[in-house]
Amino acid sequence: MNETIERILAHRTVRDFENRPLSPGQIETIVRSAQAASTSSFVQAYSIIGVTDPEKKRELSKISRNQAFVADNGHFFVFCADLHRHAVIGEMEGKDVTASLESTEKFMVGVIDAALAAQNAALAAEAMGLGICYVGGLRNDLEKVRDLLKIPDKVLPLFGLAVGYPTCINDQKPRLPLEHVYHENEYQQDEAVYKVQLEQYNQEIADYYVARTGGERSDTWTSQMANMLAQPQRMYMHDFVERQGMNKH
Amino acid sequence: MNETIERILAHRTVRDFENRPLSPGQIETIVRSAQAASTSSFVQAYSIIGVTDPEKKRELSKISRNQAFVADNGHFFVFCADLHRHAVIGEMEGKDVTASLESTEKFMVGVIDAALAAQNAALAAEAMGLGICYVGGLRNDLEKVRDLLKIPDKVLPLFGLAVGYPTCINDQKPRLPLEHVYHENEYQQDEAVYKVQLEQYNQEIADYYVARTGGERSDTWTSQMANMLAQPQRMYMHDFVERQGMNKH
Repeated sequence: MNETIERILAHRTVRDFENRPLSPGQIETIVRSAQAASTSSFVQAYSIIGVTDPEKKRELSKISRNQAFVADNGHFFVFCADLHRHAVIGEMEGKDVTASLESTEKFMVGVIDAALAAQNAALAAEAMGLGICYVGGLRNDLEKVRDLLKIPDKVLPLFGLAVGYPTCINDQKPRLPLEHVYHENEYQQDEAVYKVQLEQYNQEIADYYVARTGGERSDTWTSQMANMLAQPQRMYMHDFVERQGMNKH
Repeated sequence: MNETIERILAHRTVRDFENRPLSPGQIETIVRSAQAASTSSFVQAYSIIGVTDPEKKRELSKISRNQAFVADNGHFFVFCADLHRHAVIGEMEGKDVTASLESTEKFMVGVIDAALAAQNAALAAEAMGLGICYVGGLRNDLEKVRDLLKIPDKVLPLFGLAVGYPTCINDQKPRLPLEHVYHENEYQQDEAVYKVQLEQYNQEIADYYVARTGGERSDTWTSQMANMLAQPQRMYMHDFVERQGMNKH
């Protein structure tokens, strides 16, 4: 097994960082790594905003339900799906690109491009001995994020990536059984098999929580998921994305 | 610079593979690497379908505008945003999760989760000396992909990932200038600066094509993008995603 794969498999989320900023060289390597990812038809439909202003970081932390590490870290990146650049290009080249840019297809392209870039950034950071945590909590209030970072039309902030020197290392959470996530030649149709796999995984997750909390917590994965999903979250998103000029038709 | 970062920065797309299948061990390492990626609130909202059936691979190749490497490779993975599992969980746990699963927010979560997993898979493959190419061309006809791979409601195939032993190595395409993609504290507002950056990049891309084609091709990036985007593609996507029970509200 080589270093890269070992690193990928050893990933743990870090939510506690030293008060020590990344160097410009580290930031550049992370961004260049993000840019090296594949991009759909060469569109490069994403942007990255590095946030260093302490006031802005505090605001982003508040939006993310007061998670301290959103303000306190080595560097904070915001990954955005970005079709604004292509709107400018349409003007430059005198072509009408509106229908394309407003389509669900191109919205998906922007989200996928941004996520591929982000995962390269995350791995590059980890390869430098840094820890990372994705921050979906920014989506609690994208209107505020947009105003704070002066984000134009046809750009959608998707998530943050907090990076820094870890002060403690978390356990690795067990993932779904491989055969539950990976299917061959067709999607696994047998609901009974599917449910047995989920029950086995539930036992594994319950054991994990018991061991980690000294018995205080023993919830299963399916109960965790069902409780979370029974309360719809961020239901403003559909309209907000449309107002940003994306995912319209 | 360490091995992982060197590998990330050295990424090149490979579209020509030896006729030599990946071993079960290689496939397992790639899928486990995908699973090790971060996932939003632990939802693990994706599935991966490995396609080995030669007839199905030929069909997928046709859908992707007859790109030969979609049929001829070491292994072909299809990455899907997957909320079907969570619909089953809602039933198991007696909770109504419909509004959540149909939301644009959870659609985005599925797309992001699948893309993060895919990029880990791509890097793991490259770390084993294999080449990769993402195949967005599957989105030319997702209805056919869905029927071919027996994909249920609330699952959306996003792209393929062809993996295999490379027979030739492509050049690396220059990326947008770092300062065009990476902004600090706020989105770059100065359209004039923005356009100068694009013009500089245009020159770089034109030079790249001239060098690569012995002068036969010298198009700029902005002309390439504008021509592509002036012809809206895959405009069925909005309705198709809704019919799959996602991105509805």
